[in-house]
Amino acid sequence: MQTDKTTAGIPDKNLDINIGIIGFGYIGTEVFRLLLAQRQYIMKKTGRKLIVKSVAEKDLSKKQDLISSHKEVTFTSDPYDIINDAGIDIVVELIGGINPAYEIIISALKNGKYVVTANKDLIANKGADIFREAEKNNVDILFEASVGGGIPIIGPLKSSLASNNILKIVGILNGTTNFILTKMKENSLGFEDALKIAQELGYAEANPASDIEGKDAANKLAILASIAFNSRVHFEEVYREGIEKISISDILYADELGYNIKLLAIGSEENGKINVRVHPALVPKSHILASIKDTFNAVYFYGNYVGEIMSFGRGAGDKPTASSVVGDIISIARNFDRNNKHVIFGCTCFTHKQIMPFLETSDKFYILMDVIDRSGVLAQIAAVFGKKEVSIQSMVQKQTDASGTARLIFITHNTLNKSLYDAVAELKKINVVKKIINILRVEELES
Amino acid sequence: MQTDKTTAGIPDKNLDINIGIIGFGYIGTEVFRLLLAQRQYIMKKTGRKLIVKSVAEKDLSKKQDLISSHKEVTFTSDPYDIINDAGIDIVVELIGGINPAYEIIISALKNGKYVVTANKDLIANKGADIFREAEKNNVDILFEASVGGGIPIIGPLKSSLASNNILKIVGILNGTTNFILTKMKENSLGFEDALKIAQELGYAEANPASDIEGKDAANKLAILASIAFNSRVHFEEVYREGIEKISISDILYADELGYNIKLLAIGSEENGKINVRVHPALVPKSHILASIKDTFNAVYFYGNYVGEIMSFGRGAGDKPTASSVVGDIISIARNFDRNNKHVIFGCTCFTHKQIMPFLETSDKFYILMDVIDRSGVLAQIAAVFGKKEVSIQSMVQKQTDASGTARLIFITHNTLNKSLYDAVAELKKINVVKKIINILRVEELES
Repeated sequence: MQTDKTTAGIPDKNLDINIGIIGFGYIGTEVFRLLLAQRQYIMKKTGRKLIVKSVAEKDLSKKQDLISSHKEVTFTSDPYDIINDAGIDIVVELIGGINPAYEIIISALKNGKYVVTANKDLIANKGADIFREAEKNNVDILFEASVGGGIPIIGPLKSSLASNNILKIVGILNGTTNFILTKMKENSLGFEDALKIAQELGYAEANPASDIEGKDAANKLAILASIAFNSRVHFEEVYREGIEKISISDILYADELGYNIKLLAIGSEENGKINVRVHPALVPKSHILASIKDTFNAVYFYGNYVGEIMSFGRGAGDKPTASSVVGDIISIARNFDRNNKHVIFGCTCFTHKQIMPFLETSDKFYILMDVIDRSGVLAQIAAVFGKKEVSIQSMVQKQTDASGTARLIFITHNTLNKSLYDAVAELKKINVVKKIINILRVEELES
Repeated sequence: MQTDKTTAGIPDKNLDINIGIIGFGYIGTEVFRLLLAQRQYIMKKTGRKLIVKSVAEKDLSKKQDLISSHKEVTFTSDPYDIINDAGIDIVVELIGGINPAYEIIISALKNGKYVVTANKDLIANKGADIFREAEKNNVDILFEASVGGGIPIIGPLKSSLASNNILKIVGILNGTTNFILTKMKENSLGFEDALKIAQELGYAEANPASDIEGKDAANKLAILASIAFNSRVHFEEVYREGIEKISISDILYADELGYNIKLLAIGSEENGKINVRVHPALVPKSHILASIKDTFNAVYFYGNYVGEIMSFGRGAGDKPTASSVVGDIISIARNFDRNNKHVIFGCTCFTHKQIMPFLETSDKFYILMDVIDRSGVLAQIAAVFGKKEVSIQSMVQKQTDASGTARLIFITHNTLNKSLYDAVAELKKINVVKKIINILRVEELES
């Protein structure tokens, strides 16, 4: 039973909500199944009946079973059949990527549809445009599933934690790279071998660049940082290093020093400026983030009232992602009033903060190098570090070999990235240094 | 500027929201401070101005500084000055305990006030009455701070995760006992010594019974289970054992076996019935819950779509609790319309499920006993276990002493609590068993 009537301005809780799903792949199909399987359950909880009215998908040939068993649903190859349908209340965009998702979402918003999406690329790259359009049309666009899969992150940030100034975010936001780093450590594998296992298990794509190079995590961090720091952060503004240069030696040395290596997405606000980066880092084994294994994701926040807080769960997969997409649909449905559309959550980027130039940010470093094994070498290296204002916290000599090479690990105190790079450039010029093997950051995460 | 006007039924986003705080102790004072300090920030985020109009507290003598510096706020010793003030939109109850908080909240709801509370005793014991009254008056009562302090748990369960059937909850919901168990392990202390440190640091009260005996955790579990399983669970229905019988030996033996001991609050739904209990348990060190230390809280859920999910943070303290209280105020304020009050979240106990009798539930057990050290003893003990249908997974002999006593640790397979108790009663009767020292449960938390 569908009705547009409301009583005394109170949203009619018996009103059916009509949903159109655009994109019927892996995630779209699961959202469809969830909405059908849990319809009664959701209605009992929220008083709202969520109806999938139509589904748009370019290639429906593989979905004939679902189509023939759901005669009540309109299947179409044209997303605009949904966008231009006056009977659709919420458009769920699950095609991914920037184009044509951008045009589709903008058109849906212009037509007064509420929108739910899992599209991280779109929000991280075109967020400002999209939120402006939503606001203009008195509707919301929600995107919980774009970060951390099934883990509620954006919802809590916008509601339960909304009174906090968020000072720091540290996330393990990419399951593929976390799986690879876990496998490397647990099975003493090289990067390529671990990647191969991830590909065999379907955790990494044939072309794994987006995960491995930290692009996926950088998109997610841009979204989280925009909300946490109330200022729009774009994907390209996130400093980025991937995990491809991590070797099993780094993992073993880190372990001996008391650390696990994780691909971290870190955002912080310092003196009114935003510092955002994705890179591998040594994390103390005693910190809870170091214990996040396999394909799990986790997000750690520090808020000025709540203190430390962390959420953990499945960062990908059809069911966890569908859980978040439907959670957003429920949040919209709960307050939906067809005759009185209004923004419930809205964009929280109400200010503009500068992004700190990466070279001007500070880090603690792990530096692995091979040097000539003779007396006086350490003094020469220390002199370079000293000249460039890099202060050394510790040095360990790992091994020497017959050819007269010694392997050294330096851990620095907090130092400007610029100073560190200058020191390394200088070290490469002195002949006692045979090779700078790797430079990684150390994230102490002191609470 | 305050106005009651709305445009075309759309809630007026510029409307001030007037708040009355009842209870001005540790938490109430911090909520007051937060609302003042973050007023502009919250207004920028939500478009709503949150005004503390009045504060009620029996004894205001200690608060003269705050009173004299906030002439714009009405301070009163009578909570009914707030409840009966037509200008108050949201009543924040922070006096705790069941009486007179119950009467105060019921009266506030009858007067059409939205209510926010941190009162776990009240919700766990009088939840049904309170939600009925809220619904009758078209308002909400929110209580995020009643479980897990600053950690968003109830909000995500009611929104982002709302489409999931929650199959299991496992929480570390009491910071005091978690601190004591952490100290016992890390500093090899007995229970009494660790409790004393907790009291010295202000983490445990002079009379620590409510924490130590698991009552605090049982209240919180009753609240969570009611939401997760959509059926009202009362405090008295939660099976409960405290940590007072945990010795340093148990902690060391558990460690050798690969476990940490935690006070767990566990809820699950099995064949349509609810199994709820608070007791110490051995948790595998490889599981993330085993790594939750000190006064931190954590809640682990398993949902049929989202899979495993966990949140972690400060379970108590004025600032984290105020963060959650104000988060609830924001959730109400976001949709507040003085002329069109309506339930936004509501009670989700739409069904009635039976509570499983504890003896009919199953557990895996750790049994520590001293026996006479001679051949044939193990066979006698094994025969008793066998007769009572308790299947043994492993047995370790820890030590023997000069007096001819051997200490044994048995780990059982999953077994009915009734069978285990029967077996133990029988073992106490046979003379080769000198003493059953402790019986604890093992929570494998396999994912």
